[in-house]
Amino acid sequence: MIRWTGLLDIIDHGRVRELRLARPPVNALNPALIAALAEALRAAPTEGAAAMVLSGAPGRFSGGLDLPELLQLGPSELRAMWTGLFGLIRAIATSPVPVVVALTGHSPAGGTILALFADYRIMAAGAYKVGLNEVQVGLPVPEVLLRGLAHLVGSRQAERLAVGGILLGPEEALRLGLVDEVAPLDEVVPRALGWAADLLTRPPLAMATTRRLARRPLAEAFDALDAAAVDGVVTAWSGPEAQATLHAIAARLGKKAHG
Amino acid sequence: MIRWTGLLDIIDHGRVRELRLARPPVNALNPALIAALAEALRAAPTEGAAAMVLSGAPGRFSGGLDLPELLQLGPSELRAMWTGLFGLIRAIATSPVPVVVALTGHSPAGGTILALFADYRIMAAGAYKVGLNEVQVGLPVPEVLLRGLAHLVGSRQAERLAVGGILLGPEEALRLGLVDEVAPLDEVVPRALGWAADLLTRPPLAMATTRRLARRPLAEAFDALDAAAVDGVVTAWSGPEAQATLHAIAARLGKKAHG
Amino acid sequence: MIRWTGLLDIIDHGRVRELRLARPPVNALNPALIAALAEALRAAPTEGAAAMVLSGAPGRFSGGLDLPELLQLGPSELRAMWTGLFGLIRAIATSPVPVVVALTGHSPAGGTILALFADYRIMAAGAYKVGLNEVQVGLPVPEVLLRGLAHLVGSRQAERLAVGGILLGPEEALRLGLVDEVAPLDEVVPRALGWAADLLTRPPLAMATTRRLARRPLAEAFDALDAAAVDGVVTAWSGPEAQATLHAIAARLGKKAHG
Repeated sequence: MIRWTGLLDIIDHGRVRELRLARPPVNALNPALIAALAEALRAAPTEGAAAMVLSGAPGRFSGGLDLPELLQLGPSELRAMWTGLFGLIRAIATSPVPVVVALTGHSPAGGTILALFADYRIMAAGAYKVGLNEVQVGLPVPEVLLRGLAHLVGSRQAERLAVGGILLGPEEALRLGLVDEVAPLDEVVPRALGWAADLLTRPPLAMATTRRLARRPLAEAFDALDAAAVDGVVTAWSGPEAQATLHAIAARLGKKAHG
Repeated sequence: MIRWTGLLDIIDHGRVRELRLARPPVNALNPALIAALAEALRAAPTEGAAAMVLSGAPGRFSGGLDLPELLQLGPSELRAMWTGLFGLIRAIATSPVPVVVALTGHSPAGGTILALFADYRIMAAGAYKVGLNEVQVGLPVPEVLLRGLAHLVGSRQAERLAVGGILLGPEEALRLGLVDEVAPLDEVVPRALGWAADLLTRPPLAMATTRRLARRPLAEAFDALDAAAVDGVVTAWSGPEAQATLHAIAARLGKKAHG
Repeated sequence: MIRWTGLLDIIDHGRVRELRLARPPVNALNPALIAALAEALRAAPTEGAAAMVLSGAPGRFSGGLDLPELLQLGPSELRAMWTGLFGLIRAIATSPVPVVVALTGHSPAGGTILALFADYRIMAAGAYKVGLNEVQVGLPVPEVLLRGLAHLVGSRQAERLAVGGILLGPEEALRLGLVDEVAPLDEVVPRALGWAADLLTRPPLAMATTRRLARRPLAEAFDALDAAAVDGVVTAWSGPEAQATLHAIAARLGKKAHG
């Protein structure tokens, strides 16, 4: 069964539901896509999905936040966007069923954020990048994301990668543990579906209980994420350093789009 | 000096005492073996042992819990068994002298549990397996074991291995850090004795003090292990999912034994 | 600009200030060098340095504590020395600007301690050693150093390395994460300067904010370091085990110096 929601394709493969980002050209995250994805993630288990795969377009998983659109937002809309984004990641971290992320191409910043708290990450081989390059564009990395990153790569590599805003190719991401597997582009989604289906062969109660225990620190990372933390992100975004960098990038993107 | 206790061989190699599991055919853990091993571990330092090596039979370190016997136990015996098993692991985690585990062969589940909290693990090369495959047989992995596993392989690999109930061969176990060294089968015990003897050449007070500090988080993992945690394990064991799986395995083992 | 302070050379390379240990023959840490280095570290940011590189002599970063001199100290001087040394490491851990350590040669014990809490470590290739070998000379490793070591290599390797007092060559140190990079001796300082300069190309506020968040656990490790912890170190140092070992080493060093 395939449903088209305009921003997401929802495809059921037996008990595994694929949520495929479908906002061309690069699946940039704007408030509408964030809301649609959060809603789809929350709905899936209630509609019978026993696991989910989050995927993107071939070559483009997600280019991250939609800077041109976000730079038009007023303060309260901006705050709502960040609250929504953190809520989306929390929904992944606390999902009652496993979530596999199929990084089908370029996945910097916001693209990586969607993958940090999932159960498993498969990345396409090739000239694609993954990582938290927020610092490079003038945005501090919020603490909750540092914790998710440290869960995957350890506290030292999380420090190095986040402070430097470093992007990694698939092989280096695999070596450090930021992704779990690298596959040819056209095998990324099938392998993600296969990994999820294999996990579902386990005795379900034992698997779910162990999963909840092992992932509890990830869920708890969001307990400290209060209004003040969101304020911090909004303040950083609105400051002169970030605004200068973000507008420069948005202008470059605009030229490309019209060039 | 060698003593035969019926379930364990106790062999002193100078200041290093070897405790060799001796319950054929596979050193399955039943209440009697758990009690004998805990007693021997606690007695060794008071009888002059400066370090211990825990070993098994060639090819069979321990097959884990003795399912056919445990499935005969009533609720209070079952609770006593789990309390005893956790007490045994805690004795390893808090041992005043170093404990090296010589994984002399197959060591799934209960076999691995004995190794998680030791000072050093050497595994036999070959077609042997190590890992917490509890989920595969319908048992959730208790939190204290997740902590021990995460100490060795990091929080992300602990999540992946425990939730999937994954067993590893020696090379993969070495690569992930679940074991510290791989050796040919007939060298596993000699190398374990050698590692312990080498550690004993250090200035003893400085070594013991540093050891206690570095291992304190392992000891503290057991402070949260209260009656409720044991209840959780007993409840899971007694539920329909685990009972169905465990009886199926026990039946298979019974056929093999009489086949 | 180069300033000679007698114990340190201070060399400004644009916005990156190099602090080069200059206490022949092996840059042994005595109260005077500890005080000079702590003062220079604290002063640099107020004098315009945007990053620092800590380096040593070619082949000799630092031989660690100056045992012959320290063995002459009375109890209150000894306590002041340790308080000063912990204060120095804390200054590195909490430095408002990045600190890169250029391990230009042998760097055991005290040499390694200076590197644990820095932002990045580059070690010279060759027959040089790095590691916390305190236990080998009869000194327990204080908890704050265990935490710094675990940040770099994980809790299990920190346990193994510290309890055994193990020194590592550059390749093994790189493999375990104790250092971040290995370079030919004459490239160690240029690469450290280059790494620092590259980090300074990031938007400064986002970099500094992320750096502070990611390194907060390192800073917090020092909050638990109270007078009782310093007492513990001084007591261990003054005990018969450490005194016997330390005097034996000092006598050997004395013979070499006069041999």
